[in-house]
Amino acid sequence: MTRLFNDPADFTEDAMAGFCDLYPHYVRAVPGGVVRSAPGRPGKVAVVVGGGSGHYPAFCGVVGPGFCDGAVVGNIFTSPSAQLAYDVAKAAHRGGGVLFSFGNYAGDNMNFGAAQERLRAEGIDCRTVVVTDDVASAPKGEESKRRGIAGDFAVFKLASAAAEEGASLDEVEQVARAANDRTRTLGIAFDGCTLPGQGHKLFTVPAGKMGLGLGIHGEPGVSDVDMPSAAEVADTLVDGVLAEAPAEAGRRAGVILNGLGATKYEELFVVWARVAERLRAAGIEAVEPEVGELVTSLDMAGISLTLVWLDEQLERYWCASVDTPAYRKRPRPAEAVSHEVEHDVVEAVEYPPAAPESVACAGTIASVLAEVQQAIVAAEDELGRIDAVAADGDHGRGMVKGATAAAEAAAAAFAAGAGAESALATAGDAWAAKAGGTSGVLWGTGLRAFAECLGNDREPSGSDIAAGVAAFAEAVQRTGGAQVGDKTMVDAIVPFAEAFDGSWRAAAEVARQAAADTAALAPKVGRARPLAERSIGTPDAGAVSFALITETIAHALED
Amino acid sequence: MTRLFNDPADFTEDAMAGFCDLYPHYVRAVPGGVVRSAPGRPGKVAVVVGGGSGHYPAFCGVVGPGFCDGAVVGNIFTSPSAQLAYDVAKAAHRGGGVLFSFGNYAGDNMNFGAAQERLRAEGIDCRTVVVTDDVASAPKGEESKRRGIAGDFAVFKLASAAAEEGASLDEVEQVARAANDRTRTLGIAFDGCTLPGQGHKLFTVPAGKMGLGLGIHGEPGVSDVDMPSAAEVADTLVDGVLAEAPAEAGRRAGVILNGLGATKYEELFVVWARVAERLRAAGIEAVEPEVGELVTSLDMAGISLTLVWLDEQLERYWCASVDTPAYRKRPRPAEAVSHEVEHDVVEAVEYPPAAPESVACAGTIASVLAEVQQAIVAAEDELGRIDAVAADGDHGRGMVKGATAAAEAAAAAFAAGAGAESALATAGDAWAAKAGGTSGVLWGTGLRAFAECLGNDREPSGSDIAAGVAAFAEAVQRTGGAQVGDKTMVDAIVPFAEAFDGSWRAAAEVARQAAADTAALAPKVGRARPLAERSIGTPDAGAVSFALITETIAHALED
Repeated sequence: MTRLFNDPADFTEDAMAGFCDLYPHYVRAVPGGVVRSAPGRPGKVAVVVGGGSGHYPAFCGVVGPGFCDGAVVGNIFTSPSAQLAYDVAKAAHRGGGVLFSFGNYAGDNMNFGAAQERLRAEGIDCRTVVVTDDVASAPKGEESKRRGIAGDFAVFKLASAAAEEGASLDEVEQVARAANDRTRTLGIAFDGCTLPGQGHKLFTVPAGKMGLGLGIHGEPGVSDVDMPSAAEVADTLVDGVLAEAPAEAGRRAGVILNGLGATKYEELFVVWARVAERLRAAGIEAVEPEVGELVTSLDMAGISLTLVWLDEQLERYWCASVDTPAYRKRPRPAEAVSHEVEHDVVEAVEYPPAAPESVACAGTIASVLAEVQQAIVAAEDELGRIDAVAADGDHGRGMVKGATAAAEAAAAAFAAGAGAESALATAGDAWAAKAGGTSGVLWGTGLRAFAECLGNDREPSGSDIAAGVAAFAEAVQRTGGAQVGDKTMVDAIVPFAEAFDGSWRAAAEVARQAAADTAALAPKVGRARPLAERSIGTPDAGAVSFALITETIAHALED
Repeated sequence: MTRLFNDPADFTEDAMAGFCDLYPHYVRAVPGGVVRSAPGRPGKVAVVVGGGSGHYPAFCGVVGPGFCDGAVVGNIFTSPSAQLAYDVAKAAHRGGGVLFSFGNYAGDNMNFGAAQERLRAEGIDCRTVVVTDDVASAPKGEESKRRGIAGDFAVFKLASAAAEEGASLDEVEQVARAANDRTRTLGIAFDGCTLPGQGHKLFTVPAGKMGLGLGIHGEPGVSDVDMPSAAEVADTLVDGVLAEAPAEAGRRAGVILNGLGATKYEELFVVWARVAERLRAAGIEAVEPEVGELVTSLDMAGISLTLVWLDEQLERYWCASVDTPAYRKRPRPAEAVSHEVEHDVVEAVEYPPAAPESVACAGTIASVLAEVQQAIVAAEDELGRIDAVAADGDHGRGMVKGATAAAEAAAAAFAAGAGAESALATAGDAWAAKAGGTSGVLWGTGLRAFAECLGNDREPSGSDIAAGVAAFAEAVQRTGGAQVGDKTMVDAIVPFAEAFDGSWRAAAEVARQAAADTAALAPKVGRARPLAERSIGTPDAGAVSFALITETIAHALED
C-alpha cells in the first residue's frame, strides 16, 4: 500500500516537487508537468506523452535526450486536463509540431483531444497516436478499443527516437502508428495497490490466484486462475502475446518484461529465463530486451510481457541511446558476447593412498552422512520454524544443501578409494561450499578439523574419534567466536564434547537436552536479541540441528 | 510476497540464469557469481562484492565499467560460501590484487575471510573492507559492530571508481575505509517480505506502525512507532543520520534515499522533497543524490536514508561515470540548472462588459457553486465508495478538485464584474483544468455550453436557463459519447433535462431516482463490465454526483 504521503490530495504535486528537485539536469517543471531542461534543437518534433500519475517511470521519468520532450502529469490514475496537456505541449514545442501519445483511456482521449484542437487553432500542427497494446482488453478485430499499458513505453521510445533523429511530424506520427500496430502486451496481477490516504486496496485478487489480463488500474481481466509456477506464468504470457502477433510480424522483436511495483527483480529474472527460452524456440530474436519496472501501478503486484515486432528502421530506433531520469541506454558493443555460463570444471580428484581399514571407515562415514542427510531433509521445515523465531528462517534450507553436498561428496570419495580423513574432509569442504551462510562455514570447518584426527593410514581408534569430536568443538568455537551461553549451536556442542566418552548415544542425549534448553529461550529473547549476540554464531536452531545430527549418528552407528 | 518461482530451492540459480541471459554485454556467469564480461585492464585492482541475494540491484546488478569487477551471489539472504567468494575473486583478478567489500554479517565475515586467506596463500594480495553504515544496529563508540545496509552502495561505488581510475590496492583499500568511515544510514520498514515458497512473512510490522532501524533481513530495530506523515518520516531520517555525522563531516555529501521494494518511486519523491529541504537548511549540499531502489529486500516495504560525507577526492569518485545492468551514470552538465518551477502566470483577466442584471446573476452562480462545493466535499468519501464498486474510486476526489476550482473561479469572476455567461464559463474551464479525468472534462464542457445560453447582457430568462440545461446535457453526451443505459452520468442527466420545466426541485428528484437506479446496477455489473461500456463515459458514481449537485442547486435557489 501507499504509506508515505502528506495531504493525500497533494500527493502528485508533492511527488513532482521531489522529482524535479532531484533531476534538474533532465527536467524543468512547467504548469501541467515537465519538459526537458535542455530543449531539443529548434524545429525538432516535440513528443509529448502523459496520463494519470502513479505509473513511474511512466511518464515523467522518460523525458530527456533520445526519449520524450514533455510529459503531462495528471493526478494518481486520473487523466490530466486539456489545459495541462495544452500547457506542456506549448512549453515543449520547438517549432516542428507536437506528437501526443498516451494509453487509450476515455479521459485521456477527451482531454488530449481538446488540447490538440486548441493547439491546431493556434497554428501548431499536432497529431495524436493512442496506444492500444493490451490484448486482454478487447478481442481481435477490435484492436482500437484496447487499453494502453506497458506498450506505451515501446511506442513512445520508437517515436521519440525518430523525432531525435530529425524525422518530420508526418514521419514521427507514422513511426508511432507502425509501432502501436506491432506492439502487443499481456499482463497479470496478483494483488492490488492502495491509493494514498485510502484504507482499502483498489482491487484484490483472491489469495493463491492470479488475474489474467487485469489492467494497470485494476480494470477487469479475462479470468482468475490458480497461481502457477514461474515457468507456467512465462508460458501463459508468451503464448498469449504470440497468439496476437500482428500480420506483418517478422522474427525480431523488442521485448519488455515489466514489473508493476511489488513483483521484484529476482522474480522477473526467474520468469525471464523461461520467456527467453520460449521466444528462442519460437524463432524470435529478442532484441535488447528490457526487464524491470517501466510502467508501474504504485505497489501493485503483477507483471506483463510486451513484444514490439521490429523492422530495420524500428530496430534502429529501439536500440538508440537514451538519457533520462529513469531510463538510460547506451549502444551495446557490436560483438556478440557469449551467453554461455562457465560451468564448474569437475576435476578428477586424486586422494592420497589409504589403508583398507581407513577406506572401510570412509564407507561408514559415507553411509552415516547419507542418514544424516535424510534426517535433515525430514526436519527441514521444523528447523526453519525454530530459526524464524529469532532469525531469518533459512536454517533448514541451508542445512539440507550442506548435508546433501556432504553426503554426495563422501560417497564419491569412498567410491574413488579415499580414506577416512580424505572422505570426511571432502565432505566438510562440500558442506561449506554448497550451504553458504554461517552454519555452512561452521560445519565445514568443524568436519575438516574432525577429519584431520582420523588419518588415512589406519582404522580410526576410539581416541582418534574423541580427538575429532574435541577438534570439531574447538574449530566451531574458534571460527564463530561464540561462547557457551550465547544461545548458538556452541551451547549444544560443548556439553556434547564434554560428555563424549566414545559413546555417541549418551553424549547425543546431552546435546539434545542442551539444544532444547537453548531453543526454549528463543521465543523470550526473540528478535529483540542484541545485535552483538546475534552476530557471533549460528542462530538457536543450529543447536537443535546439531543435536539431531548427533542423535542420527548414534542411531546409525548402532544399526 | 515472492510469488514467482519454480522450485524454491533453485530460486537464486533460476534468477541468475535469467539475469545473465539478459545482460551478456555486462556480465559473465562464473562459479559463485558474475564478473564483468569485458574485464578491466591487466593490473587493475579487482573490486569484488557480494552477500546473500534478494537485494537486487545489490550485488550482481552493479558489476560493470566504473563499478564492481565481480559479485559473489549467495542464496536468498544467506552468505555465499568461502569457495564461491574465492572462485569469483579468482575469475575477477587482473593481477592487481582483490578488494573484498560486503556488509557486516557474521556469515559473510567468515566466508569472505576464509576466501581471503586462501587467495593470500596463493600469492594474490587481498584486502577486506566491511561496511558498517546502519546507525540503528549498535551505539556510537561501537561503530564496527554495525550492520551494512544501503551504505554498501556508497562504499562500493567510491572504491570501484578509485580502482577504475588506476589506484593501487593500498589506495583502493584506503578509499573504501574512508568511505565507510564517512557513511551513515538509518532505515525504517513498514512490512516484511516473504521468501520464495514460504507461506508467511519473514517478519511483520503492526498495522499503522513503522519499525525504526529495522535491518534489511528483518533484524530488530530501535522501536515501533506510529506511522507519521511523509514529511515526519523524512525528518526522522534526516535527524537520525545527522546526529551520527562523522567527526570529519564537511558540508557536501552523497545522498541515497533507498526504497526496499514495495515502497515506490512516487512515495520516495514525496519524502525526498522534504529531505532535500531539511539538508539545505542544515547547510549540507546533496551531491548528485540517488533516489530509487539500490539495495532492496525482495518486496519489503520500507526506506532508508544514507549520507556519505565527501571530500574532494571522494566527490570525484561519487560523480564518476558508471555503466552496469542496474545503475548507469553519466557526467552531469557543469552548468548549474535552476531548480525553480515556472509557476502559473496569473494574468489579469478582462471580462466583456456586462449588464448589472447579468452581474447579479453571476453573484448567484458564485454562491450556488460555493454550496455545491460544500456538498461535494461532504460527500467525497461516499462518492469514492460508490465509484470503487465499478471503477477506481477516485471520483470523489476529482469532483472536490473540480467543484472547488469552479467555485473559486466564479467568485473571482463575479468580484471582477463578470456577467453570468463569463462567470459560469470561467467556472467550467477551471473545473476541467483542475479536476482532470473524465468527469472533469465533461463538467467543464457542460458548464461552458450552459454558460453560452445565459449571455452577459441581460438577466437570464427562464427559457435561457432551460436552453442551458439542454445544452449541458447535449454537450456531455457529445463529448463522452455515452447513451442512456450505458450506466454513466448520462443516465441521470437526460431524464433530468427532459423533466426540467424551470423547476429545479422536481427535475432534481427525477435525477436522484435515476442515479439511484444506475448505482444499484453497479454491484451487479461491477468490475466485469465490458471495456467498451466503461470507456465511453464517467462511471456510475458520476450519476450520483450529478443528482447531488442538482439537488443542491434546487435547495440553494429556494433559499
